[in-house]
Amino acid sequence: MKQQLFEKLDSAYEDMVVIRRHLHMHPELSFKEVKTAQYIHDFYADLGIEVRAGVGGNGVVARVKGGRPGKTVALRADFDALPIQDEKEVPYKSTIPGVMHACGHDGHTATLLQVAKAIHELREDLAGEYVFIHQHAEEFAPGGAISMIEDGCLDGVDAIFGTHLWSMTPAGTIEYLTGPIMAAADRFSIKVQGAGGHGASPHETKDAIVIASQLVMNLQQLVSRRVNPIDSAVLSIGSFVAENAFNIIADTATLGGTVRTFNPEIRDLMEVEMKRVVDGTALAHNCTIEFSYHRGYPAVVNHAAETEFLKTVAESVPEAQRVVESIPQMGGEDFAYYLEKVPGTFFFTGAMTAQPYPHHHPKFDFDEKAMLLAAKTLGAAAIDYQANETL
Amino acid sequence: MKQQLFEKLDSAYEDMVVIRRHLHMHPELSFKEVKTAQYIHDFYADLGIEVRAGVGGNGVVARVKGGRPGKTVALRADFDALPIQDEKEVPYKSTIPGVMHACGHDGHTATLLQVAKAIHELREDLAGEYVFIHQHAEEFAPGGAISMIEDGCLDGVDAIFGTHLWSMTPAGTIEYLTGPIMAAADRFSIKVQGAGGHGASPHETKDAIVIASQLVMNLQQLVSRRVNPIDSAVLSIGSFVAENAFNIIADTATLGGTVRTFNPEIRDLMEVEMKRVVDGTALAHNCTIEFSYHRGYPAVVNHAAETEFLKTVAESVPEAQRVVESIPQMGGEDFAYYLEKVPGTFFFTGAMTAQPYPHHHPKFDFDEKAMLLAAKTLGAAAIDYQANETL
Amino acid sequence: MKQQLFEKLDSAYEDMVVIRRHLHMHPELSFKEVKTAQYIHDFYADLGIEVRAGVGGNGVVARVKGGRPGKTVALRADFDALPIQDEKEVPYKSTIPGVMHACGHDGHTATLLQVAKAIHELREDLAGEYVFIHQHAEEFAPGGAISMIEDGCLDGVDAIFGTHLWSMTPAGTIEYLTGPIMAAADRFSIKVQGAGGHGASPHETKDAIVIASQLVMNLQQLVSRRVNPIDSAVLSIGSFVAENAFNIIADTATLGGTVRTFNPEIRDLMEVEMKRVVDGTALAHNCTIEFSYHRGYPAVVNHAAETEFLKTVAESVPEAQRVVESIPQMGGEDFAYYLEKVPGTFFFTGAMTAQPYPHHHPKFDFDEKAMLLAAKTLGAAAIDYQANETL
Amino acid sequence: MKQQLFEKLDSAYEDMVVIRRHLHMHPELSFKEVKTAQYIHDFYADLGIEVRAGVGGNGVVARVKGGRPGKTVALRADFDALPIQDEKEVPYKSTIPGVMHACGHDGHTATLLQVAKAIHELREDLAGEYVFIHQHAEEFAPGGAISMIEDGCLDGVDAIFGTHLWSMTPAGTIEYLTGPIMAAADRFSIKVQGAGGHGASPHETKDAIVIASQLVMNLQQLVSRRVNPIDSAVLSIGSFVAENAFNIIADTATLGGTVRTFNPEIRDLMEVEMKRVVDGTALAHNCTIEFSYHRGYPAVVNHAAETEFLKTVAESVPEAQRVVESIPQMGGEDFAYYLEKVPGTFFFTGAMTAQPYPHHHPKFDFDEKAMLLAAKTLGAAAIDYQANETL
Repeated sequence: MKQQLFEKLDSAYEDMVVIRRHLHMHPELSFKEVKTAQYIHDFYADLGIEVRAGVGGNGVVARVKGGRPGKTVALRADFDALPIQDEKEVPYKSTIPGVMHACGHDGHTATLLQVAKAIHELREDLAGEYVFIHQHAEEFAPGGAISMIEDGCLDGVDAIFGTHLWSMTPAGTIEYLTGPIMAAADRFSIKVQGAGGHGASPHETKDAIVIASQLVMNLQQLVSRRVNPIDSAVLSIGSFVAENAFNIIADTATLGGTVRTFNPEIRDLMEVEMKRVVDGTALAHNCTIEFSYHRGYPAVVNHAAETEFLKTVAESVPEAQRVVESIPQMGGEDFAYYLEKVPGTFFFTGAMTAQPYPHHHPKFDFDEKAMLLAAKTLGAAAIDYQANETL
Repeated sequence: MKQQLFEKLDSAYEDMVVIRRHLHMHPELSFKEVKTAQYIHDFYADLGIEVRAGVGGNGVVARVKGGRPGKTVALRADFDALPIQDEKEVPYKSTIPGVMHACGHDGHTATLLQVAKAIHELREDLAGEYVFIHQHAEEFAPGGAISMIEDGCLDGVDAIFGTHLWSMTPAGTIEYLTGPIMAAADRFSIKVQGAGGHGASPHETKDAIVIASQLVMNLQQLVSRRVNPIDSAVLSIGSFVAENAFNIIADTATLGGTVRTFNPEIRDLMEVEMKRVVDGTALAHNCTIEFSYHRGYPAVVNHAAETEFLKTVAESVPEAQRVVESIPQMGGEDFAYYLEKVPGTFFFTGAMTAQPYPHHHPKFDFDEKAMLLAAKTLGAAAIDYQANETL
Repeated sequence: MKQQLFEKLDSAYEDMVVIRRHLHMHPELSFKEVKTAQYIHDFYADLGIEVRAGVGGNGVVARVKGGRPGKTVALRADFDALPIQDEKEVPYKSTIPGVMHACGHDGHTATLLQVAKAIHELREDLAGEYVFIHQHAEEFAPGGAISMIEDGCLDGVDAIFGTHLWSMTPAGTIEYLTGPIMAAADRFSIKVQGAGGHGASPHETKDAIVIASQLVMNLQQLVSRRVNPIDSAVLSIGSFVAENAFNIIADTATLGGTVRTFNPEIRDLMEVEMKRVVDGTALAHNCTIEFSYHRGYPAVVNHAAETEFLKTVAESVPEAQRVVESIPQMGGEDFAYYLEKVPGTFFFTGAMTAQPYPHHHPKFDFDEKAMLLAAKTLGAAAIDYQANETL
Repeated sequence: MKQQLFEKLDSAYEDMVVIRRHLHMHPELSFKEVKTAQYIHDFYADLGIEVRAGVGGNGVVARVKGGRPGKTVALRADFDALPIQDEKEVPYKSTIPGVMHACGHDGHTATLLQVAKAIHELREDLAGEYVFIHQHAEEFAPGGAISMIEDGCLDGVDAIFGTHLWSMTPAGTIEYLTGPIMAAADRFSIKVQGAGGHGASPHETKDAIVIASQLVMNLQQLVSRRVNPIDSAVLSIGSFVAENAFNIIADTATLGGTVRTFNPEIRDLMEVEMKRVVDGTALAHNCTIEFSYHRGYPAVVNHAAETEFLKTVAESVPEAQRVVESIPQMGGEDFAYYLEKVPGTFFFTGAMTAQPYPHHHPKFDFDEKAMLLAAKTLGAAAIDYQANETL
C-alpha cells in the first residue's frame, strides 16, 4: 500500500509545484489568509473530500475515512506568509508588494494537499481515519494552533505529524529528534522612565540611556551565570530606542527583545530573573522601569516513540538519502501546542538550493523536490501508523 | 552723563517692550533671520545712524561716533530664534508655527536698539566710538560670530560687552564671573557597525546594541576617572537608536551626544580619550565603530579687568539689587569668539518670572523689566569705559 | 564465564573495602604517590602478575594474557589524592594532615585491583589480553595519562574502559553517554597593569580595579553572545585580587578563572575571543594587560559503539538497578587522552551515601557497595568485549 | 612690632632646624605620640610658658598673654607621623623602623614652637592672648582636633590660623583660598555576600565577583551623572578582594574605597546614592551586600575675611615671593573642625626641594627654609590680627 502511495505522489509532484507556485505568487499575512483558505477549501471540496473551513479562524480541516476501522492520525501544514518584500528574480515571485512566502509554508500546503488527495484515492484499502490540518497564522503569536485545537481539529486524533522544509539543510535529508527540537520563543519589552533634561546638567536628570545600557549589560549575564551550562537559553535585545537631540539627556528608553529556551524551568527562571534585574536597576536609579514579558509558543517537544517510528518510516522512503538526528533549533513553532495534546513528532525536510538563503530572508527559496520527500514521509507515516502496534 | 543715559533709557522702556513683542511674534530660525535683520537695519537707518547689513551673513552692525576722541567699545546682541512651538498663552505669542524666541534673543535685540538710540542722542557729549553688533545665528554652530568677526565687526574695537537675560535668576540681579562663565559645547556621533542576524543565533552576529551599551558605560567613566576632580566636564549621550523587530539582533546602533568643558586641555583630553575607548571597544568586538567629534563654540572666558570693571558699573545701576558672582554654566555661547579677539566680559541679567521656565522650554518667557537693567548696565559700561584709565 | 567473574567479585568485596580503607588512610598528592604506587605494584607482584612500575612517572601497569588469542582491552583507575583536610569522623579517616582521598580514587584502585585478580584467576578460560592501568596524577594538570601513554601503556590496546564513582548519584546506577561526557577544563590568568596613585587623584592614574571590573563584565558576554546556544561553555572568574589601602587607586589587579567547554571549536573560540576582549580593553585604557591561557584536559568524548556496548553490559550486572543516560559534566578528566588514542567509554557509577557531599568536599565519602557494581561492570566489559563481533 | 618678630624668627631658624630634625628622627604614630607630646610640653615648661598636656588625648596647648587686652588668636600645628618606612638617605633619617614624618608635621611643630617663643619674648608689647595648639593624630580619623576642642582648646578663641608645608609647591609661595581648600575625606567598605561554588556550575551560585564588578562600574557613574559638573566629587575603590582557587566561584567579595567632596550637600548625596546602588544591586542579584560609610574629616572651609586678611599679611613677609590663590586639594585635614567653631583660615606654604616627592612618599622631604616663611606668616597673622578692626 505504501508503494502505491509513493507512486501516486510521484505522479502528483508536478501538481505540487503548480500549487506551490500559485500560492507563492499570492501570499497573505498571518490572520489575513482569506484567499489561501478558500483555495485550500475548494481543493478538497472539488475532490468531494469532507472539509471544514473557518476552523479557529482561517484554519481548514479535511478528513478522510479509511475502508476499515483504525487509529486517527493527523498531518499538519501551515499556510501564512511574512511581511517581507520578495527580492528573488523568478517567474513565481510574489505579486503582493511587501508580502512573501519566505518560510516555505506554500510548500507545506502544496505537499499536504497532494498527500490528502493520494490517501483519499487509496482510502478503501486503508484502515483508520486521516485528518489534514491546514493551519493559518503560524508566524505571529498567539498563532493559529491554539484556536484550531479549541475548535476541535484534534478531536479523536491519536497522533500527529508535521514537517518543516529547511533551506539550510541539503535536499534528501530528514532530520528527527526526540525531545525539544524547537525552542520556546518569548518576547519582552522594557521601558525605562528616567527624567530628561539638558545634556549639560546630568545631575538634574535620571539618564534613561545610561540606565538602559546598564540593563543591557546586566541582562546579558543571566545566560552566562544563571542558566545551567548544559541547558540552552538565549536573551537578545533587538531594539534600543531613545532618540533625542544630541544635547539632551533622554527621558525614556525602550528596549525590545526575545528569550529562547527549551526547558520550561529555564523559561520560568529567565522571566523571574529578568524581573529581578529590572527591579534592582529601577531601585538603584530611583526610577521606574516597565517590564512586560509575553510568552510565545512553547518548545516543540517531540515524543520518543513517535519520533523513533518516524525515523524508521523515513528510512523507507527512496528519496531519503540521509535520516539523521537534528540539532535543536532556537526558533519557535506553534506545532508545540499539538504535541501538548497528542503524541507525535515534528521533523525537518532538507530543501537547500544551490545558493541557499536562510528562512525569512528576502531571497529565500527552497528546492521544490523536497516537497516530494516530505509528502512521502508524511503520507507513509500516516499509513504505517495504522499497522504499528506499539504506538 | 550716565545719569542722562539712565533717564533716556527709563523713557525708552515702553519702546523696548513694543520692539521685543514685535520680534517675539515674528521669530526666525538661525541663518534665516532675513526679516529681523531688515527690521534692525531700518531702525538704525530711520534714525540716521550709520549701519551695515549683511555682515558675515545676516549680521547687522551700527556705529556711533562720540563728540571727541576715545576708545572704541562694542556691545553685542543676538537675534535668532529656535525650532520650538510656542506654548505660552500671551498676546505676543509667536505667529510662526514651530518657531519661537525661547531663549530671550528678542529681548537682547530690543535692549541693544534702545541703548544705541540713547547713546546716539548723547553722542556729542561722549568720547570715543560705539559699535552695536547685532549677531545672527547664535543657536546653531558654527554660529554667526566667526563670520561677523571675519567681516570686520571687531575692527578697531578695544573692548566688548554682552549679556544674556536669564529666566532662572531673579530679576534685579547681575551675575558676573572672571574666567570661564560658559562651557565649550561639542557634539559627537558614534556609529557601531556590528553584524545583524536572528535573535536566536547571537553567535553568528556582532550585537550592535550590546557593543553600544558597553560604550555608554565605558564612556561615562571618562569623567569620573580621567578628568581632574577640580575641573569640570560633562559627557552626555542623548540619543541611542537601534530600532529593529524584537527577534532580530541589531546590525547597527547610532549614538549622539555632547561634551561640555571649560578648560581647553580637558576638552582635548576628552576627545582623545573618547577615541581611545571607541577604538578599544571596536577591537574587543572585532567590529568597526565610526566616531566623529565636532567642536562647537569654545568656552566663554571673561577677562579679569573688564569683569571687575563691569561689576563696578553694575553696582551703579539703580535697578541692580544684587551684583553677585555667577556659577559657571555648562551651556555654550559663541560670544566666546569675540573674547578670543578683544578684552571684554559676558554677564547674566536676571529675568525670572512668577512661574519660571528654563531656556528652550515651550513656555519660556522672561520678565521684561530685566531689559531696562540690561540696557542701563550695557550702556553705562560703554560710557564709563571711556573714563576708565586702567583698561 | 561472566557469571564466574561476578561470583569471584562478590567474594572479593571485603578485600576491596580493606584495600580502599588502607589507601584512604594513606593518601598521597598528585605526582607524589610513591607509596601508593609501591602498594599497587606489590599487590600484582605478590600474585605473580606481570607488572611494570614507574610508567610515565608513578604509573603502574599490569597485564594478564588469556588462554587463547583475542583482543586487548584496557581498564583504568587513578590513585592520587587531594590537598584537602579530611573532616569526616570515620575509623578510616586520612592519617595525613591536609591530604585526603576526596574524589574516590582510592575506591577506583581497590576496584581495579580486585577485577584484575579475578580475571587473572579466570585467565585460562579467557580470550585476549587485559591491561590494568593504574594512573597517577589525575587531579593536577598535565596529569599522568599523557606520560603513561607516551610510555606505552596503550600499546596494542583495542579499547579502554574506565569509571568514576559518583557521590551525587544514587548507588545502583550506571550512567553512560555517547559523545562528550566531561568538559575540557582550562585555566586562565589576567594581570591588569594600570598606574596607581592617591584615591583623590584618579586623573593621574589608570585605575586597575575599574579596568578589571570592565573585563569581568565584558568577558561574561562571551558565553551569551559568541557561543552557539546549542553548545555549552562556562567562563568563571574565581579570583579578583587588588588589595590596597582604602584611599589608594590600584596599580594592578589580578584575575584568575576557568573555561569549560565540550566542543573543541568552542574551546578555541573562547581563547581567541578572550584575547580579543583583553587587547581591546588594554587599548581603551592605554594600559597593559597580561593574559595567559593554560589548556587543561580536553573533553572526555565517549565513542558511540563502545558506549552502546557498555550500556548493554551494565544491564547484565545484577547490582545495576538503573542504567541511564548521563548529563554531561562540566568537570574535567584526563581519561580524555586515552579516548583520543583508542576507542572506549568512561561512565559514572552511582555511590551516594545517606548524607552525600560533593567531590572535593572535606566530608566527601562514598557508598563502598558501589565498588562492587563498578568492578562487575568493568570486568564484564573486558570479558564481553572479546565476544562482541561488531567492535 | 612685626619687624621685631621677623628678626627674632630669623635668629630662631637654626633652632627650628634642630628641633625639626630631632622630631624627624623620632617619629610616633597617630594616637601614640607620647614622647613628642612630652618634648613639646617640656619646651614650653622650660621657657616658663603656661602649658597644658593631655588635652583631648596627647594634645598640648600653650597660652601667652600680651601686655594689654585684646583678641585671642590661636595657631595650630599637628605632630603625628605615618606608618611608612623612611627611604631617604639623610643624617636626620627616621630611627624608628616603619614610622616616618612623611607629611611635614615635624616641621609644623618646630615652626610653631619658635613662633610661640618669639611671641612670648615680645608679649609685654603685644595686645591680646595667643593660644598655641599642638595637635596629635591628624593622620588618622577621627583625629585629635575634635577631642582637643571638646577639651577646651578653642575656649575664648576669636580666630585660628594654620598652615601645611607643601612639598609640591615651590618654596617662597603662600597659597590661600576662600571657601573649601581641602576636601571631606570619607571611607566606605562594601561586602558582597554571594553564594560560592564550583567554577563549572555558575547556575548554582551567586557570583560575588561578577556582582562586585557591576558595583564598581555602576558606582563610577555617580560622579558623572549625579554630581553637578560645577561641583567636585571623587569616588575611588582602592581595594577589591575575592581570592579563591581558579576553578571556584567566589562566595564573597570585599571592596574598600574613599569619597572626596567639598560641598556638604554633595557629600550627603554621594552617601545616599551609593546606598541606593548597593541596594539595587543586591535586589537584582538576590544577594546581600553590606555597606558601611564612615565619615572622615569634613571639608576645610576657609572664612572669607580671615583669608583676605591672611593674604595681606603674607604679602608683608619678605620671604613670600608669591602669594597666590590655591587650587582646592582633594585630600582631607581635621583643621576643618576648628573652622566649624571659630573664624580662620588654613593655607599652604611652598616647601619644594630640588627633587620633590609627594606627601606620604617614602622619600618625602621638604625645604626647611619654608619653616621660616611659615613661621613669619603665622606669627605676623597673630600679631596683625589684634590691630585689624574689621575682623
